[in-house]
Amino acid sequence: MSKQQTILKARWVLPMTPGGAVLEQHAVVMDGERIAAVLPWGEAEARYADAERVELGQHVLIPGLINGHTHSAMSLLRGVADDLALMDWLNNHIWPLEKKWVSEDWTYQGSLLSAAEALRGGVTYLNDMYFFPTAMARAAVDAGIRAGVSINVIDFPTGYAANAQEYIDRGVAAYEQYKGERLLDWTSAPHAPYTVSDETFVKLRELAERLDIQMHCHIHETQEEVDGSLKQYGMRPLERLNKLGVLNERMLAVHMVHLTEAEIAMLAAQKVHLVHNPSSNLKLASGVAPIKALEAAGVNTILGTDGAASNNRQDMFAEIRAAALLAKGVTGDPLTVSARTALEMATIRAAKAMGREADLGSLEVGKLADVVAVSLDALECRPVYHADAQLVYVAGREHVSDVWVGGRQVLKGRALTTIDTAALIERAEHIVGQMKAGR
Amino acid sequence: MSKQQTILKARWVLPMTPGGAVLEQHAVVMDGERIAAVLPWGEAEARYADAERVELGQHVLIPGLINGHTHSAMSLLRGVADDLALMDWLNNHIWPLEKKWVSEDWTYQGSLLSAAEALRGGVTYLNDMYFFPTAMARAAVDAGIRAGVSINVIDFPTGYAANAQEYIDRGVAAYEQYKGERLLDWTSAPHAPYTVSDETFVKLRELAERLDIQMHCHIHETQEEVDGSLKQYGMRPLERLNKLGVLNERMLAVHMVHLTEAEIAMLAAQKVHLVHNPSSNLKLASGVAPIKALEAAGVNTILGTDGAASNNRQDMFAEIRAAALLAKGVTGDPLTVSARTALEMATIRAAKAMGREADLGSLEVGKLADVVAVSLDALECRPVYHADAQLVYVAGREHVSDVWVGGRQVLKGRALTTIDTAALIERAEHIVGQMKAGR
Repeated sequence: MSKQQTILKARWVLPMTPGGAVLEQHAVVMDGERIAAVLPWGEAEARYADAERVELGQHVLIPGLINGHTHSAMSLLRGVADDLALMDWLNNHIWPLEKKWVSEDWTYQGSLLSAAEALRGGVTYLNDMYFFPTAMARAAVDAGIRAGVSINVIDFPTGYAANAQEYIDRGVAAYEQYKGERLLDWTSAPHAPYTVSDETFVKLRELAERLDIQMHCHIHETQEEVDGSLKQYGMRPLERLNKLGVLNERMLAVHMVHLTEAEIAMLAAQKVHLVHNPSSNLKLASGVAPIKALEAAGVNTILGTDGAASNNRQDMFAEIRAAALLAKGVTGDPLTVSARTALEMATIRAAKAMGREADLGSLEVGKLADVVAVSLDALECRPVYHADAQLVYVAGREHVSDVWVGGRQVLKGRALTTIDTAALIERAEHIVGQMKAGR
Repeated sequence: MSKQQTILKARWVLPMTPGGAVLEQHAVVMDGERIAAVLPWGEAEARYADAERVELGQHVLIPGLINGHTHSAMSLLRGVADDLALMDWLNNHIWPLEKKWVSEDWTYQGSLLSAAEALRGGVTYLNDMYFFPTAMARAAVDAGIRAGVSINVIDFPTGYAANAQEYIDRGVAAYEQYKGERLLDWTSAPHAPYTVSDETFVKLRELAERLDIQMHCHIHETQEEVDGSLKQYGMRPLERLNKLGVLNERMLAVHMVHLTEAEIAMLAAQKVHLVHNPSSNLKLASGVAPIKALEAAGVNTILGTDGAASNNRQDMFAEIRAAALLAKGVTGDPLTVSARTALEMATIRAAKAMGREADLGSLEVGKLADVVAVSLDALECRPVYHADAQLVYVAGREHVSDVWVGGRQVLKGRALTTIDTAALIERAEHIVGQMKAGR
C-alpha cells in the first residue's frame, strides 16, 4: 500500500551498520511500521513515486536512541536533592519521598513526562526500572515510545508492595495485562544485590527464563556496595550473583563502576551486557566505569541516563558525548571510545542488549522504522566535516527535529504529536506542588 | 533618562552575590549600560513607572557567562579532526591547516561565528587567544559581545608573523587601534611554555605590566609538556615560569591538568587564576585537573571551552555541568564543586580573573548590565525545586532566550539582533568549502 509509504530525504543518513558508513543525500523509505529501503534520493523517488515525501534539509537520520537504564517516574523528583552521596541521597531523600508519594497515578504522570522528554531528545526506547509497571506501560503506549517495562523487586516494603512475592505477582499481572502490546518489552528486574535476597534473585532468574525476557539490575555501583557484600556474604556482589546463575546474556548489569580484571573477563565470557551511566556515576561520586578495559575485553557496553533524581537531564546525547570524552580523559588514551563507538552504544549495541537486534538499533531494510532526524542547520552545528562525529561532539538533543517510532511520527518540528504538553506540565506541577506543601 | 530604563521581570533572579541567594519574583532594572536595581516586581514597577517592561515567564536571570579560554576563529575547524592525541592533533592537523589558511578574514569570519554561538548560549564575554587580534576585536564589536583579545605570541613563524617581535608589534598595534573600545579587554598571551622562549616570556610580562593587562597562557596541559620541559630546561614548566616572574595575579593559567601539591600551594599563594577546560582535557586525553585540591587551597578557578577544534561544542552550560560532575566522580567526593560553585566559576570568579570584578560577573547595582534570561518553560526543565541547581544539572544553552550586553539586547527570543545569521553561515561554509577543495 503506497499510502503507507514515506520517503525521508536527508543530507546524511547514519544507518549504524557495520563498517561505519555515512551516506550522503540518501533517503530512508518507511512502509508501514518497517523500513522498506535506504537508498540515494533519486532512486527513492523513482522507485517509490507515490510515496509521501518528507524533505529534510541539513539533517542527519539516525536510528532511534535507546536509553539503557532509567527510572522514568523520577522526573517528578528532578533536582529535589543534589550534591549528595548515594546512600545519603537514597536513605534520607529519595526513599522517604517515594514511600510517601509514589502511587499508580504519580508513576504514570512522571513516566509520561520522561517519555515526552525522551522523544524530544531522539530517544525511542526507554529501558525502565520502577514500581507500578502498569503505569509505565500505559505512559509508553500513550506517548508512542517503546519501553522495557520492569517486573521490579526490592526486598523491603514500599507503597507498591509489601514483600518480594507481592512485587513479583504485581509485575507478572502487569505483564499478562499488556502481553502483545507491540511497543513494550519486559524485564525481570531485581533492584540491586544490597536490596534483594538470594532467594528472590533465583525466583527472578526463573521468571526471566519462563517468560524469555531480559534481566535488569544495578550492580557494583559504589565501593560501599562491594564492601558491604564482602561483609555480609563474604564475597563481592558479582561473585554472589554468578553463583545465583544470573550473569549471562539475559542480564543488563547497570553501573558496574568497580570491577577487577577477572570480573571483566568473566563478564565478557558470559556475555553479560553492561549499562554505563557516566553522568549519574559522576554526580553521585560513585566513580567511572572502566570502559576502555571493558571494550578491550569485548563486553557489550551500552548507555543509560539513570533517573532524573541522579541525572537531572535525561539526555542521551549528553551521555553519548560523556562516554566518548570520559573514557579518553581518565585513561589518557585519545583513541578509546570513538564517536562512532559511542553512537553504537546508544543504538545497535543497545538493541542487542535488549534482545531486539533483529528489529531495532539500525536503519536497515526490514527493521522497525524508529528514525530520528537531527538538524545541523543551526550556526552552532556549522561547519560539518564528519556527520557522525558532529552528532557526538557538536549536536545536542535540542537539534532533534522529528521522530518516528515504528513508522508513526511522534515528534514533528519539535512538537509532540501524541501528548498535550501544556496539560502534561500542569499535571506534573500540580503533583509537585502537593509534595512541596506536604513536606 | 527613563527611556533608557528597562525592567526585566523573571520568576527567579540569581545575582551570583556572596551568600547564594535565589531571588523569586524579582526584577533587574537596567539604566543605560548599567544595572540600576535588583528588587521585587512590585517595587520595581512602582519605582520605575516609566521604564520599558520585559515580562519573562518561567525564566531565571543570571549574569552573562564568561568563557575563560577559547580560540574563537577555530570554529572553522570544528570537527576537522577528532579522536586524536594533542601533539598528533596539533602537529599533523591543526597547525598545518592554520599555516595554510589563516588570514585576517578567515579569523574574522571564524570569530564572528563563535561570537554568535556564544551569545546564543548565554556567553557575554569571550577570553580569546589567537592570531590577528584586529579580526577578533572587529568580530566582537560587530557581534556586540565582550572579549579579552590577545596579544598572542608563538615562537615560530606562521601566516600571521615571522618572529616573536613581529607578533608583539602587531598585537600592540591592534591594542592601540582599539584603545577605548568599551567591549574589549586585552591580554598579553604567550602561547605555552613549549612554544615560547624565556626571552619572550619576559617581554610579554613587561608588556602586561606596562599596559596594565592580564596574561593568558596554556600551562601544564599534558604530561608530555611537563616531561619535555624537564628534559629541555631541567625543570617543570611552572618552576620555569615562576623564575621568569609571570606567576601572579595577572596570570590566567589555562588547563593545569598536571600539578603537584607544592605547585597548587604556590598558585594559591601567588594568586594565579586557573582556567579549567574539562571537556577539552577529556577529549584530547590530557587528563582531569585536580579541582578539588585547588578549591581546598583557595585557587581562583574559572571555566573555559577551549577552541572548537578540541571542544567542538562551544557551550559554557556544558562546561559548568562537566566541572560539577567531573570533580565529584574522579575524587569520590559528592560534596566538591557544588552547582553553585560551578556557576561562580563561569561568572563572578571569571570576572575577577579578568580583572573586571568591579564591572562584571554578578547582577549588582552599578555593574554593567550583562544579563542572560534562561527559560525553564520546556517540559524537560520541569519541575523546578532549586533554580540554581536546575541551571547546572538540567538547563542547557538551548534554553537561553534573551541576552543583554551592557544594556543592549543582542539576543531576542533566540534570534541575534546584531548578526545576519544566514549570511554568516553562508560565508563560513564558503571558506570551509575552499579548505575542503584545497586539501
